[in-house]
Amino acid sequence: MNYIAHIYILPLPELLDPQGKAVVNGLHNLGITAVEDVRVGKYITVKLRAQSKAEAENLADVACKKLLVNAIMEKYSITIEEL
Amino acid sequence: MNYIAHIYILPLPELLDPQGKAVVNGLHNLGITAVEDVRVGKYITVKLRAQSKAEAENLADVACKKLLVNAIMEKYSITIEEL
Repeated sequence: MNYIAHIYILPLPELLDPQGKAVVNGLHNLGITAVEDVRVGKYITVKLRAQSKAEAENLADVACKKLLVNAIMEKYSITIEEL
Repeated sequence: MNYIAHIYILPLPELLDPQGKAVVNGLHNLGITAVEDVRVGKYITVKLRAQSKAEAENLADVACKKLLVNAIMEKYSITIEEL
């Protein structure tokens, strides 16, 4: 069956996120002053074939660990959608 | 009240995504051949103050339109989490 793995990657909370800080400043300059903090990460969708939802999740997890996520600087979560 | 707006941005489906294509090739080279397609976008969390969930969603939407999203090349969706 076909699945889509939705992968959400963010910089670890204890690390600085200069891109997020730049977005905060940009939004403040645009008058959106209610914004207090921004973290900028990656959203990756992976379409894949697998026998089960569990296998799809496992494949996505391997893809994250081997290629997509830098565990020293980033955390991630995965949700699986069946097509 | 404080909210976190989760913003998910992806390249429009009708556009090429060379970064996604590179990830597909990388995963295939790593032996993960079940992967058929990858789209790489952005995941942005925005912490903000608002009177209501509706106001928080509206602020996040304005932030997307004014700064975060390039509507010519990207689509986005927003979910609001109450802190």
